[in-house]
Amino acid sequence: MEFRTERDTLGEMKVPADKYWGAQTQRSKENFPIGKEKMPIEVTHAFAQLKKAAAIANGQLGKLPDEKKEAIVRACDEIIEGKWNEHFPLVVWQTGSGTQSNMNVNEVVARRGSEIAGKDHFIHPNDDVNMSQSSNDTFPTAMHIAAYHETEKRLKPALLQFKKTLEQKEKQYMNLIKIGRTHLQDATPLTLGQEISGWRAMIDRSMEMIEQSQQYLLSLAIGGTAVGTGINADPSFGDKVAKQLEKQTGYPFKSSPNKFHALTSHDELVYFHGALKALAADMMKIANDVRWLASGPRSGIGELTIPANEPGSSIMPGKVNPTQSEAITMVAAQIFGNDATVGFAASQGNFELNVFKPVIIYNVLQSTRLLADGIQSFDERCAVGLEANEEVIKQLMERSLMLVTALNPHIGYEKAAEIAKLAHKKGLTLKEAAIETGYLTAEQYDEWIDPAKMVNL
Amino acid sequence: MEFRTERDTLGEMKVPADKYWGAQTQRSKENFPIGKEKMPIEVTHAFAQLKKAAAIANGQLGKLPDEKKEAIVRACDEIIEGKWNEHFPLVVWQTGSGTQSNMNVNEVVARRGSEIAGKDHFIHPNDDVNMSQSSNDTFPTAMHIAAYHETEKRLKPALLQFKKTLEQKEKQYMNLIKIGRTHLQDATPLTLGQEISGWRAMIDRSMEMIEQSQQYLLSLAIGGTAVGTGINADPSFGDKVAKQLEKQTGYPFKSSPNKFHALTSHDELVYFHGALKALAADMMKIANDVRWLASGPRSGIGELTIPANEPGSSIMPGKVNPTQSEAITMVAAQIFGNDATVGFAASQGNFELNVFKPVIIYNVLQSTRLLADGIQSFDERCAVGLEANEEVIKQLMERSLMLVTALNPHIGYEKAAEIAKLAHKKGLTLKEAAIETGYLTAEQYDEWIDPAKMVNL
Amino acid sequence: MEFRTERDTLGEMKVPADKYWGAQTQRSKENFPIGKEKMPIEVTHAFAQLKKAAAIANGQLGKLPDEKKEAIVRACDEIIEGKWNEHFPLVVWQTGSGTQSNMNVNEVVARRGSEIAGKDHFIHPNDDVNMSQSSNDTFPTAMHIAAYHETEKRLKPALLQFKKTLEQKEKQYMNLIKIGRTHLQDATPLTLGQEISGWRAMIDRSMEMIEQSQQYLLSLAIGGTAVGTGINADPSFGDKVAKQLEKQTGYPFKSSPNKFHALTSHDELVYFHGALKALAADMMKIANDVRWLASGPRSGIGELTIPANEPGSSIMPGKVNPTQSEAITMVAAQIFGNDATVGFAASQGNFELNVFKPVIIYNVLQSTRLLADGIQSFDERCAVGLEANEEVIKQLMERSLMLVTALNPHIGYEKAAEIAKLAHKKGLTLKEAAIETGYLTAEQYDEWIDPAKMVNL
Amino acid sequence: MEFRTERDTLGEMKVPADKYWGAQTQRSKENFPIGKEKMPIEVTHAFAQLKKAAAIANGQLGKLPDEKKEAIVRACDEIIEGKWNEHFPLVVWQTGSGTQSNMNVNEVVARRGSEIAGKDHFIHPNDDVNMSQSSNDTFPTAMHIAAYHETEKRLKPALLQFKKTLEQKEKQYMNLIKIGRTHLQDATPLTLGQEISGWRAMIDRSMEMIEQSQQYLLSLAIGGTAVGTGINADPSFGDKVAKQLEKQTGYPFKSSPNKFHALTSHDELVYFHGALKALAADMMKIANDVRWLASGPRSGIGELTIPANEPGSSIMPGKVNPTQSEAITMVAAQIFGNDATVGFAASQGNFELNVFKPVIIYNVLQSTRLLADGIQSFDERCAVGLEANEEVIKQLMERSLMLVTALNPHIGYEKAAEIAKLAHKKGLTLKEAAIETGYLTAEQYDEWIDPAKMVNL
Repeated sequence: MEFRTERDTLGEMKVPADKYWGAQTQRSKENFPIGKEKMPIEVTHAFAQLKKAAAIANGQLGKLPDEKKEAIVRACDEIIEGKWNEHFPLVVWQTGSGTQSNMNVNEVVARRGSEIAGKDHFIHPNDDVNMSQSSNDTFPTAMHIAAYHETEKRLKPALLQFKKTLEQKEKQYMNLIKIGRTHLQDATPLTLGQEISGWRAMIDRSMEMIEQSQQYLLSLAIGGTAVGTGINADPSFGDKVAKQLEKQTGYPFKSSPNKFHALTSHDELVYFHGALKALAADMMKIANDVRWLASGPRSGIGELTIPANEPGSSIMPGKVNPTQSEAITMVAAQIFGNDATVGFAASQGNFELNVFKPVIIYNVLQSTRLLADGIQSFDERCAVGLEANEEVIKQLMERSLMLVTALNPHIGYEKAAEIAKLAHKKGLTLKEAAIETGYLTAEQYDEWIDPAKMVNL
Repeated sequence: MEFRTERDTLGEMKVPADKYWGAQTQRSKENFPIGKEKMPIEVTHAFAQLKKAAAIANGQLGKLPDEKKEAIVRACDEIIEGKWNEHFPLVVWQTGSGTQSNMNVNEVVARRGSEIAGKDHFIHPNDDVNMSQSSNDTFPTAMHIAAYHETEKRLKPALLQFKKTLEQKEKQYMNLIKIGRTHLQDATPLTLGQEISGWRAMIDRSMEMIEQSQQYLLSLAIGGTAVGTGINADPSFGDKVAKQLEKQTGYPFKSSPNKFHALTSHDELVYFHGALKALAADMMKIANDVRWLASGPRSGIGELTIPANEPGSSIMPGKVNPTQSEAITMVAAQIFGNDATVGFAASQGNFELNVFKPVIIYNVLQSTRLLADGIQSFDERCAVGLEANEEVIKQLMERSLMLVTALNPHIGYEKAAEIAKLAHKKGLTLKEAAIETGYLTAEQYDEWIDPAKMVNL
Repeated sequence: MEFRTERDTLGEMKVPADKYWGAQTQRSKENFPIGKEKMPIEVTHAFAQLKKAAAIANGQLGKLPDEKKEAIVRACDEIIEGKWNEHFPLVVWQTGSGTQSNMNVNEVVARRGSEIAGKDHFIHPNDDVNMSQSSNDTFPTAMHIAAYHETEKRLKPALLQFKKTLEQKEKQYMNLIKIGRTHLQDATPLTLGQEISGWRAMIDRSMEMIEQSQQYLLSLAIGGTAVGTGINADPSFGDKVAKQLEKQTGYPFKSSPNKFHALTSHDELVYFHGALKALAADMMKIANDVRWLASGPRSGIGELTIPANEPGSSIMPGKVNPTQSEAITMVAAQIFGNDATVGFAASQGNFELNVFKPVIIYNVLQSTRLLADGIQSFDERCAVGLEANEEVIKQLMERSLMLVTALNPHIGYEKAAEIAKLAHKKGLTLKEAAIETGYLTAEQYDEWIDPAKMVNL
Repeated sequence: MEFRTERDTLGEMKVPADKYWGAQTQRSKENFPIGKEKMPIEVTHAFAQLKKAAAIANGQLGKLPDEKKEAIVRACDEIIEGKWNEHFPLVVWQTGSGTQSNMNVNEVVARRGSEIAGKDHFIHPNDDVNMSQSSNDTFPTAMHIAAYHETEKRLKPALLQFKKTLEQKEKQYMNLIKIGRTHLQDATPLTLGQEISGWRAMIDRSMEMIEQSQQYLLSLAIGGTAVGTGINADPSFGDKVAKQLEKQTGYPFKSSPNKFHALTSHDELVYFHGALKALAADMMKIANDVRWLASGPRSGIGELTIPANEPGSSIMPGKVNPTQSEAITMVAAQIFGNDATVGFAASQGNFELNVFKPVIIYNVLQSTRLLADGIQSFDERCAVGLEANEEVIKQLMERSLMLVTALNPHIGYEKAAEIAKLAHKKGLTLKEAAIETGYLTAEQYDEWIDPAKMVNL
């Protein structure tokens, strides 16, 4: 491997000759040989958007000459395109302000920008690329940009697609009456479409809560620089950058109204992740329902059939398992843990800075990605192919004792209970038991006990 | 102790003669001798509001005679007033649908209502008090009513009061320049008012997020009855009850648009509790800042003084400790755990019901209460009495090296770093070091390094 | 209400005349109007054991006159008996060192001791009762004593009793062959006794892990006083107290080898609570299995019958629900949250003290209590009465396709898979399908497919 | 890219021609496009150890011909060496039993083994490599092997190395007296060596707890096959494999006494991770102490100096930050979340299997790795270079008021408190205040107040 020599304020460093990063990135690489979790590339791309917007804003303020601005903008565009992904080698477990990832971007932009401009060391990482900025305001800004973008680009499309599938199934099975279950015990009937509508409503609700809490991510720390006062930045810098970012991304970013808050509190990401957790809880419920309703094939509930995507067992031939449910419920388990990490980390700020930023954004982006991918996979490989076993559903519904509930308004709760118990004890049908008690006639039974009426479509 | 005999569908039970509850409550009391955590009385009061509204709605629908309705309404009013609190003996660790707490209310209202009407067994717990209802829709309805009410009555007033205190301090100290600290290390200056404005902005943000997520609690499960289909209830029942509840409480409740969701998902409470967790993270940060800034008196930071509310130590005479910070940070630790419990519990629904309802509402109400009380106490006994030690603040600010940051735009980051390091190494003032390097003159130093300008008021 | 006047180093306080506590307790009562969670009485009783042992040790060291020692010992004995429980009014959310609960004990012992001695103000709360001690070493000592004692007195007996029930059921059903289920899908057979043996092994394992981690609680902070150096205490004091505590309780307590650790780290309680969490996870699994196997009565799995302890539904007559499973799974949800709180709180120590002690012990004791009570209730009201539905079990087992697994060693995995799929597709019995494929004869089928051999008893 | 065609029981699949995996792996790759988290390579290596041991055991049992055995053993050895790492492409979010990762190993071993034997399709993935096994017993076996090995290989060496550093510092500074701090407030003195001994004792304790809980990981599920009965495996198979694994690894593995437990409960990993959480809490405390004690350089506590490893700020020149503390505290935050995930996942088993295995082992191994790497980095780049600022320490200690505690045994707590308060109020030295009160003479003061005696070395 060949090296070149770079320097920062602590001295010289050997850097791989074919990499664009500089001394500070190299130093961080060597100082934090911890784990395998890279700073998410989404953060780097968000940083590139930000550095571009900052260069343009600095240009507008007359602080950055056009030639430098152009070079920076072009270098950033290349990073956004993904051209330089392998030039961002740092891990999550570094300085808690993400300083070194900020410097990594500054260094790559400076070197690549200088190259574009055709002038060695033309762009300075700190004085030019980081002009009017600090890690303390840029890193939280990049966190918000990345989380917002991932939600728009990945999570919401996955939710919409899954919702459509559910709506289609809801409609398809709206009149298929089946037994209800509460406490895992037989209860009064509903239709399969109604049951599915509950799942669909969960996705609706989660979508609303995600969109609502996501709005706070539009608030950007940029302009606060080192401690929130905006030292070395023009007072209009934050607004200018936010407006430029809106132009670049289409997202209506705003400069945060209180920069001291923006550098030290991550309440907004905690709240947003709470919406992700609510979605994870709903997905856990939906995926569990699906696998229980599809349990069997012969000794389970068996009301639904789901696609057989792979051989289920390395030892039991012919076994088919609800593996998409398993993947998404494992994702949910991960999201619950991530939520604990995000809350803990957000609570540990001191004075003018919270230095748990990398671990927060790593977890937020992992949650967003896993939910998006997991839901999309669950949708495409399970929900879309889900089918009702109408025969099983009919059988189970008909022998249910809980149809007795419809008698309450006619003979009261206590007599109705007597009938159900008699049927259970003697293994009778409900009708047989009803007549045996003498509380009602066969005709009344047929009139009062009508599952189709009980579901209140 | 004297007893009377009551019965339910499983048989007879001996019930304390002086208590209004019936057989099912007694059975639950005996069946769940688990822990000491009572079903929160706020849930019972919410239930009484609901039973009252339900009786009125049933009256409107012509299903419940006026005499019964009146008796039920009066009994409920007495419960709401707190007159019968000791007649609700059940613990949290019972049926997961809260059935027995619903029956406890039904039984007490039936007995007390019959007494009011002057007719023995005039009101039936199931057929009258529970008319058109199920535990499965009433319990989640009571959960939402109770959580919403506690937020209105306790939490939001506490937040408002605390915010006012912070606003006053923010204003008072807006021009008091002090050193900033990032990574616990000296950083560029800001004013104490600015620092406090960050805390205030946290409370603003939390308030917004609580109010926003709280709106979902206005959605009520009532009308869904056993499995969400509304069996045995008139289709208009949910709306009628919600409207009546609005009359009674002033809160704009609505019947939930999808009852299958309302019985099985608690995503709304997970999301709401996420806002409480964000607040807890902020309070952790604020309380930590306060105790660190007030640390000392002689060997800490000492920039703030806080009230001495009690002798701090049983062995060290004259010691004063930041005990209000300690109480509220312990509260925060509890809220983080509660958040884990709520999310876990919400994820465990099956089919038409989630049977972790009591543990969810117990945790949500504990969190709401602890945050409200804890913040109020922190405000009254600590924040209100917080004062700046202006002398200490001035000393620390003046000797800071990070004022050097203001030189970046004039001489560049690298030369500025040289100055700071020289000062640190030789124990010089920043000015001495600046001049020694020759990068600027004394006059330039005085012009460029002006803390008052650095804070950008 | 009548009051008397007491004083501490901050001045005078009015204290209810009929209460034994003094000025510091009163001050704390007024300063922390937060929540309803009292300091667990088990902590107070542990404190009384400690104060008694300390008085005896101070007597041995010649520092405390016999008359004082005797009075303190007698007062402590009365507290241990539960005679003065209502004289400990403080909440959890107080000073994080538990100073005020230590002072509450000091004050009650001093006042009651003086009364016993017949001399007003004969015993001083700090100088006598707290002699050679600090809150900083006594509170963590009381935490360990209380947690150890609750584990011995409540949790382990509950586990042993539950284990016995499981052993009895395991034996009873050791030869009852049933279908196995993996991924909720039909799998190869096992016996019900084997399935129950898995549950029993969980309790065995948890018992081992609890007993092992519990040993660390025998290590006591006492002797460390204010910061761990043992200032104002004789170097032998910690050992003497530990030995005396062993005499009093029968538990082999030891003075902790490093007091700086003992005051600042609660790794031992985090680890211990990890064992409680492992148990909670196991109970979740067991209770879920029980309710799923007992699901139905007509549209679920129905292999088990569990006791009907109460009417299950306020609207569905005759419904019986697995309520003991619901109570213990809600307990598990609480334990998971408590575990998060304990870990968080334990991580927040600074310098010579961790000031999250009350919230830690509150959660540890709640977990211990809830698991003990919940398991005992689950055992007595569910496990003991659990019965196999042999007919259902037989039916489900016989129609299973996964018996095909036994063919692997004879015809290979792939052909066996073909048979299973054919049976599933055409609705054949496994034997019919096997013969149809021609891979084996009817005789071979009967020889190779023998569920009784598959369970390897 | 070139492909070859492979098949499994569901049909044909196109597989990259240069990869050794087969149809099932390919199917899983396509079916689970979720996230970027690969199944940890440590699991694959553990699987290879297991497959090797299983082949040898099957050979001993006369079930697997020597030629096949040899080929399998050699293929496994190559995998263990890391030669085929890129042939294991599956993600964590797959079947919850890890079936597809088991099949991935089976397929690669079969193909590579056949190649070694020089015979096409000589080794069958299921019938040969998976002989006497199921995913249901092999995956949990690999989980235990991997977690145990990582603990031995990475975590314990890191802990030992860090402990040595602390012991050296403890010894070096055992006589350097400094002020103690409790509640962040000045307290009685101790030596820096004593303070460090508390940290060292935390590492000792954590080491003990990790080693203790780690023992349970020696218990292996192997031999249980599909549901715990050991169908298709010889009853001695589990023991034979465990013994062979001991030969291969040196770790004293045992076949688990109850396989039903081993497949369905992960209480052992929950418990083990509880020990990791206790360590994380301790590391949080230690790293916080270090950064607070090193805070400044001019406006913090400043008792310690830590190495300057990188430029601290992109905007503030010359700033040095406690970045190693930041990395390890972020690691701690991650471990807390992982702990929540592991507990949740372990609680969700049903019947004969827990299908959250991949997410459990992913989190356990991430925690082990991050703690190991993080502690090693903290040790090498921070703890080793940590130095006392003796001058600062001396100054702060001398002006402390809490030395007054030493007067308690002489003049009582209340008078001592008066002295401390007087000194604080008037800004006196403690001695001046003591004399002013008249409670003691200057000579007595000098005799009684001796910091060197207060630390009780």
